[in-house]
Amino acid sequence: MRARYKPWAADLIESHPEIIIPDPENFRGRWHEVFGNDHPLHIEAGTGKGRFIIGMAKANPEVNYIGIELFDSVIVTALERVLEEPAGVPNLRLLRVNAKDLGEYFQQGEVDRLYLNFSDPWPKTRHAKRRLTHESFLKLYETVLPSEGEIHFKTDNRGLFEYSLTSISEYGMLLKDVSLDLHANEPEWNIMTEYEEKFLKKGQPIYRLEAQFQSN
Amino acid sequence: MRARYKPWAADLIESHPEIIIPDPENFRGRWHEVFGNDHPLHIEAGTGKGRFIIGMAKANPEVNYIGIELFDSVIVTALERVLEEPAGVPNLRLLRVNAKDLGEYFQQGEVDRLYLNFSDPWPKTRHAKRRLTHESFLKLYETVLPSEGEIHFKTDNRGLFEYSLTSISEYGMLLKDVSLDLHANEPEWNIMTEYEEKFLKKGQPIYRLEAQFQSN
Repeated sequence: MRARYKPWAADLIESHPEIIIPDPENFRGRWHEVFGNDHPLHIEAGTGKGRFIIGMAKANPEVNYIGIELFDSVIVTALERVLEEPAGVPNLRLLRVNAKDLGEYFQQGEVDRLYLNFSDPWPKTRHAKRRLTHESFLKLYETVLPSEGEIHFKTDNRGLFEYSLTSISEYGMLLKDVSLDLHANEPEWNIMTEYEEKFLKKGQPIYRLEAQFQSN
Repeated sequence: MRARYKPWAADLIESHPEIIIPDPENFRGRWHEVFGNDHPLHIEAGTGKGRFIIGMAKANPEVNYIGIELFDSVIVTALERVLEEPAGVPNLRLLRVNAKDLGEYFQQGEVDRLYLNFSDPWPKTRHAKRRLTHESFLKLYETVLPSEGEIHFKTDNRGLFEYSLTSISEYGMLLKDVSLDLHANEPEWNIMTEYEEKFLKKGQPIYRLEAQFQSN
């Protein structure tokens, strides 16, 4: 998700290192020190404006959350939303880094669950490698999740979801749960993203899956 | 699929043993003798009124087809449709048997591909065992297909398709292809079933998957 260039974004981001960690490579293997507890760690690759990850963090105080987003112009909105919270969101941090470098910031087994929400569909076949459910990304996620770690994925994009089902199966992962219209029987634990609300209002179905790596 | 009781159906069925094989257990392991060639054999469990299997047989003369349907009142319509074909449908036979007894009529590796189309969804959880993609049925199909044999499955029923994706994955099968709206880009090889046309006209998406057994 890109947004208009915001020249003030970099300054605001740098003035809040307690939320957007400026040197995340230094915490590889010791994120529990940042949070000051041993709660499980769930991350979202492609956090966008942060609605999902902030909602999850508020709803689940016994879990630590990290949202990862590359673009200043987008992550700054997530930051502003955290700052608007009167009591803050103590179990949430943000990283302004590229999801393809996850392995630099987390060690094997350090991330208990990975969320992917409304990732860029990259519809052209020649761009398939950029889809966040491409084999190369699944391989990357496997390096930071524990054995039998889970990925939870939501999208409105039919083509991306079709691709993801086969890519995940081909990788040898187990499909634990699939919904082809999440809001037909919306689970009470569901937290909507910005895109999700937008597409829901248009009457488009939201697709969701949970998949698990298999230990060999 | 059940239809109104047709007292004349049994007579018509019995008078066409060249199409509806009366003693299929006698041909276990030697269906190629019935067809008089060594073409691959594809079967459909739950053939209903036969539109799909007749269409496939006419479109693919180099493949042999067997449609399986339990109910006289339904299979008789498939029979009538075959009889209406001026040149007949030489590469098609019908069996009036229960799909759960497949193993009595086919030996391991004898069926090259299995089609499941618009099977009864059995939506209640306590009836899950009756769904044709339940683990017990997958185990059955594995006894008649070769290693790496394929199942091709279509349905309009979202709940059944969601269930089938996880059931098939859980069984250790590989998802080769998934479509969540078959008619959005309908492949030229697609042959519609009666249900498919009906639901398509209502604007409902048709779900389809291809899954493959994995050799260990």
